[in-house]
Amino acid sequence: MPTTHRFLEACRRRPVDRLPVWMMRQAGRYQPSYRAVRQQVGFLELCRSPELIAQVTCAPIDEFGFDAAILFSDILVHLPAIGLDLTFEKGEKGKGDGGPRISNPVRTRADVDALKVPVPSRDLKYVLDGIRAIKAGLAGRVPLIGFVGGPFTVASYVVEGGSQGFNRLKTMLYAAPEAAHALFEKLTQAAIVQIEEQIAAGAHAAQVFESWLGELDREDLERFSFPYLTRIAEAVKKTGVPSIFFATGMSGHLERLAGLGFDVVSVDWRIPIDEARRRAPGVAIQGNLDSTVLLGPTQAGVDKALGVCRAAGPAPGYIFNLGHGIQVGTPPENVKAVVDAVHAFRWK
Amino acid sequence: MPTTHRFLEACRRRPVDRLPVWMMRQAGRYQPSYRAVRQQVGFLELCRSPELIAQVTCAPIDEFGFDAAILFSDILVHLPAIGLDLTFEKGEKGKGDGGPRISNPVRTRADVDALKVPVPSRDLKYVLDGIRAIKAGLAGRVPLIGFVGGPFTVASYVVEGGSQGFNRLKTMLYAAPEAAHALFEKLTQAAIVQIEEQIAAGAHAAQVFESWLGELDREDLERFSFPYLTRIAEAVKKTGVPSIFFATGMSGHLERLAGLGFDVVSVDWRIPIDEARRRAPGVAIQGNLDSTVLLGPTQAGVDKALGVCRAAGPAPGYIFNLGHGIQVGTPPENVKAVVDAVHAFRWK
Repeated sequence: MPTTHRFLEACRRRPVDRLPVWMMRQAGRYQPSYRAVRQQVGFLELCRSPELIAQVTCAPIDEFGFDAAILFSDILVHLPAIGLDLTFEKGEKGKGDGGPRISNPVRTRADVDALKVPVPSRDLKYVLDGIRAIKAGLAGRVPLIGFVGGPFTVASYVVEGGSQGFNRLKTMLYAAPEAAHALFEKLTQAAIVQIEEQIAAGAHAAQVFESWLGELDREDLERFSFPYLTRIAEAVKKTGVPSIFFATGMSGHLERLAGLGFDVVSVDWRIPIDEARRRAPGVAIQGNLDSTVLLGPTQAGVDKALGVCRAAGPAPGYIFNLGHGIQVGTPPENVKAVVDAVHAFRWK
Repeated sequence: MPTTHRFLEACRRRPVDRLPVWMMRQAGRYQPSYRAVRQQVGFLELCRSPELIAQVTCAPIDEFGFDAAILFSDILVHLPAIGLDLTFEKGEKGKGDGGPRISNPVRTRADVDALKVPVPSRDLKYVLDGIRAIKAGLAGRVPLIGFVGGPFTVASYVVEGGSQGFNRLKTMLYAAPEAAHALFEKLTQAAIVQIEEQIAAGAHAAQVFESWLGELDREDLERFSFPYLTRIAEAVKKTGVPSIFFATGMSGHLERLAGLGFDVVSVDWRIPIDEARRRAPGVAIQGNLDSTVLLGPTQAGVDKALGVCRAAGPAPGYIFNLGHGIQVGTPPENVKAVVDAVHAFRWK
């Protein structure tokens, strides 16, 4: 694959022949091909099979023509390796994959100190083998994005024991800040070794999913998040591949996010894309179609997607994406229509 | 009550002797006095008793010394009068008041056309009698804030049938925009007649709770929300009392929100309060302490509250509040400590 693929070029704010497009959760339950795989295997079983990882990662490239593939995995796959019992509840029929459940959540400083840092080549070999299998499947057609969860987002599951909000974790910040820092330190180390190994195995870019970081105010972001995120961005920078930061609900912090050291900042639909680009001129911007529009009439999705393209403007450094992941129940033809419309979009 | 009370003066961006403070959901389950009332009556029963409305509205003024009272009611109390069957599920022990349930949700244009506009003097007399009883109870000590729900937020419950997210409503925007506009028109008329009558009954200010509006992107805000909100702001302006806009997750739209015609814009903790004031100099700003800090050690809440006061700066036009409502389980002593700290705060 040429290193000048339009997705990688846009990450580096270089001119491209047409707008690159990929969508978060582009491999998922909205696809008949994914649902067929999941009728055979559970979610974690899928995440642990290099062959199936490659199959579901490559499928949306074949089906929709996205400009980048993203490793099929989960931001919590490393938890068993660090000492936490992870299961996924069975999703309801027609709904998502079910939420994560951690039976031994982290509540005390002693719990934090007992956590290990994973050794990816030993503990997450299936991920690295999956990356090699994906690259064989892609055969150089599009770049592959590796990813890890951000320390705050992973901590929210680790401390709450699942998807139960943020009150326990945030109370830990206020009542036991040293324990919280120790936890973020461990999770940062875990994120860095994972993303370094993913890149060494062949990932062409790295996205940090810090999906729920918008729950914190600026003071807590500065104390408990940004220093750790900066270290992750630096670790990716040393490898030479572009880094992408993703979160939701952070329009109030955009200038600050743009200074953390990531090459690309992904924004949700809660800020107009032209304002995002104006407020963060030093990074590439990714986003920001509201995934809900893809549930409606095809033309509504296409119209809104083209509005995003126009608002993004002709300057280099823009990657079309959603503001969050594709939702279960999205008609695949809507996804295809938006990909085609973005690819056909041209500045006159 | 003098019309120069510090809360009303701050709404109008006039100098005050000390920072006014109130907290959303200041009457609620975190208070032993409220829980005692709720052991006797259900939530809707409470909302329909003028005597109990007055009792629970005035209690936090006595207990904590807030600078404003806010009518105890709910943004959905008018739904039975417009033709919808509203119940509240019993909250779990120790949790909130349980979610609303509407057994005949609005799904079609015909459903919308069947909705009536309420006549508050007939359908919501208990609210207006409640306001008169509150004013007798307050005896001029502090101003009383009336409120209504914003059209989008009320519509989300009305269309989904409860607190089930936003997909049905948002899909209506895209698939049946005329039905959506007809619904917002009805809910806007309902909001206006309610707030006008509340003010006529004696409310000194009016807050519009458009809590979930942050779900929409700018294009949809401009089409489906802002024109309706502008009409509500204009209706309040004609009465001469200050208007307050409240939403969450809207840091990406602050300049635009400041131009809707409200006197005060309430912001959540997802933007530093100094940035909010700088970006919206033409309105008073209310907010924005993260309510979660009140679950932790008392000093953590006080420290963060004082940080908010300092960041807000000495310019007139700031009202201390939370970014969202007080959470169940908040120790009352933490609320009291923050009120006292804000009142003691002075610019040297």
